[in-house]
Amino acid sequence: MHQTFDAALEINLLHANQVGADHNREHFDRWGITCLNIMSSPGAGKTVLLEQTLKALKDKFQMAVIEGDMTTELDADRLRKYDVPVIPINTGRSCHLDSKMVAGGIHTLEHQYNPSDFDLVLVENVGNLVCPAEFEVGEHAKVALLSVTEGEDKPLKYPVMFQEADCLLITKTDLAPHLDIDLDRIADNVRQMNSEVTIIYLSGKTGQGLSQWFDWIANTIKQNLVNQLALKV
Amino acid sequence: MHQTFDAALEINLLHANQVGADHNREHFDRWGITCLNIMSSPGAGKTVLLEQTLKALKDKFQMAVIEGDMTTELDADRLRKYDVPVIPINTGRSCHLDSKMVAGGIHTLEHQYNPSDFDLVLVENVGNLVCPAEFEVGEHAKVALLSVTEGEDKPLKYPVMFQEADCLLITKTDLAPHLDIDLDRIADNVRQMNSEVTIIYLSGKTGQGLSQWFDWIANTIKQNLVNQLALKV
Repeated sequence: MHQTFDAALEINLLHANQVGADHNREHFDRWGITCLNIMSSPGAGKTVLLEQTLKALKDKFQMAVIEGDMTTELDADRLRKYDVPVIPINTGRSCHLDSKMVAGGIHTLEHQYNPSDFDLVLVENVGNLVCPAEFEVGEHAKVALLSVTEGEDKPLKYPVMFQEADCLLITKTDLAPHLDIDLDRIADNVRQMNSEVTIIYLSGKTGQGLSQWFDWIANTIKQNLVNQLALKV
Repeated sequence: MHQTFDAALEINLLHANQVGADHNREHFDRWGITCLNIMSSPGAGKTVLLEQTLKALKDKFQMAVIEGDMTTELDADRLRKYDVPVIPINTGRSCHLDSKMVAGGIHTLEHQYNPSDFDLVLVENVGNLVCPAEFEVGEHAKVALLSVTEGEDKPLKYPVMFQEADCLLITKTDLAPHLDIDLDRIADNVRQMNSEVTIIYLSGKTGQGLSQWFDWIANTIKQNLVNQLALKV
């Protein structure tokens, strides 16, 4: 979050964003969609994770991706190969997606497809370990990735992301033998910030943790559908 | 940069920051100090770089560090071992240092030390590949780090940082053999954004590139002193 030299203005910005996020979530709830907000530093493996998720789950769930990038459609192009709708959002100079940008993506989903056909919308946020954690976009759960190459101390130094995450993926575990790093200490530091978070060790290269991640998604969708039915009763 | 829903407000924020940055630079120029703003994603190796720089150059240059972190003094504590003044700034929820925060650090330097004794002030920014590039703090040169683990496409996807950098350090090159990555392509992508930037391949582990980095610092200080003398004439 930028210091705006005005605390009231900051509160207004976050409040306006939250109103938009709640509105987005109402849409998702009406359509029976679960939305996940996927966040991390640049290069922690968000797009690889989405590639593997789309490939593994595309016969099980109807999925769409809202793909945030400052510029380019490089990631969107990678994901389009998996025959799911990929809606790109270029944020320009903005360092995170906000609820207004994602509302634009939802609008596209609504007008180009039948939104009730979808089970899961995966939002890939801009690579940034700070700001995306503060700007809800209408998601039902927040997923954060932390690469083992980023170091053990990051949960302590960038606390908001780790406090907010529902699921934390510790990625690139295949590189751990080449680093002076203790995987358990990363997890301990995460738990210091958030005792409730689900932690999964993941390697896109070896496949470690992928089935656990797919199970987490399936359970989250199931639980969310129960909640959405309860909203309708 | 956060979208503030108001273009005029954004311009005012950046303008107010720039006025402060120019003021900070006037202080540095009066004291004959060169200031470097060190920026990267979290975990790209900024603090390791500073440790090695303080260790190698502390008999050659009088140095001080302004150490930005959202919370904790973990990095500041690591650097204090090298017997140079380390001035910590906790940014709280802010995702970058701004010129006002750094002015606070300069104030400390001025009142606790004799600022004219110093040659070099190293500012370690918050780990973020987006926002720090837009908020000048009074530096004479911007140094960006990009770890090889972050991927070849990052200069294209996060262009502002690479457009603004005077020196780009491609770090953790010792990990390249374990990654599916082409080092030359990283450099090509950087040059596409910025044809003038000095690019140095660096490994904190093997020492690759360190002497080139120390030479770059010495040359930058020398050139800056020439400029500062010209300002006084």
